[in-house]
Amino acid sequence: MPSRTASAQWNGKLKSGKGTMRSGSSGAEYPFSFNSRMEGGNGSSPEELLASALAGCYSMALSADLEKAGFDPTQVKTTATANFSNTSGKWSVDSMDLVVEGMIPGIDDAKFQEIANGTKTACPVARALASVKINVNAKLV
Amino acid sequence: MPSRTASAQWNGKLKSGKGTMRSGSSGAEYPFSFNSRMEGGNGSSPEELLASALAGCYSMALSADLEKAGFDPTQVKTTATANFSNTSGKWSVDSMDLVVEGMIPGIDDAKFQEIANGTKTACPVARALASVKINVNAKLV
Repeated sequence: MPSRTASAQWNGKLKSGKGTMRSGSSGAEYPFSFNSRMEGGNGSSPEELLASALAGCYSMALSADLEKAGFDPTQVKTTATANFSNTSGKWSVDSMDLVVEGMIPGIDDAKFQEIANGTKTACPVARALASVKINVNAKLV
Repeated sequence: MPSRTASAQWNGKLKSGKGTMRSGSSGAEYPFSFNSRMEGGNGSSPEELLASALAGCYSMALSADLEKAGFDPTQVKTTATANFSNTSGKWSVDSMDLVVEGMIPGIDDAKFQEIANGTKTACPVARALASVKINVNAKLV
């Protein structure tokens, strides 16, 4: 069972404090703050890393699903947007929007849409994010 | 409503292909592959970024919950491990383990444990990851 470890810290209070997230494999650091997370300011946020994770998982899983269906995918590229809002006093990731571009020789659009929609509910990160509505807008390029 | 965007791509088939995840704010790139994701090889994985996101969200949310309870938190540091396994032919994030170290002047351990357990079900990323069992091991340092 592969396990992946990462870390983060937060120093101080909610609005005046600041945090840093770190990845395990590259050591890359993502500074974040109340301003960067809740007010759209400069810096990172946990939701940005959720968007990266879902974009990566979806791209890999769609390629795998296309291969299973007999195609030889050249490239799947996904842009993910995490929508984070405060409704009734509670911050939540309400939805994530995926814009998907596939370079898939020999497939028609109907088949591509069918497979892309199946991947939306099958990819491991999408299943982990069980309370988040995921929208997929897929096109062949 | 703050939105956060990130992207990724996968080139080729499942086992012989390779992918890259990118963050929006820093442009940092995380290469990944079947080997790095499913076999514990070098490189990144979507689950690593989920672990970073949960560690960051939990650290910030626990600091906020401690502040709400009247404390003045110095630091909350969280290490998150995502456990990813293939059971009955389907890869899933089964659980995530959080090891939390709090520097909180004037709190006793019982109160700290109570608040740390509350944050486990309240933080936005934990709620988004609704199908994942989250375990918290918290200590004062």
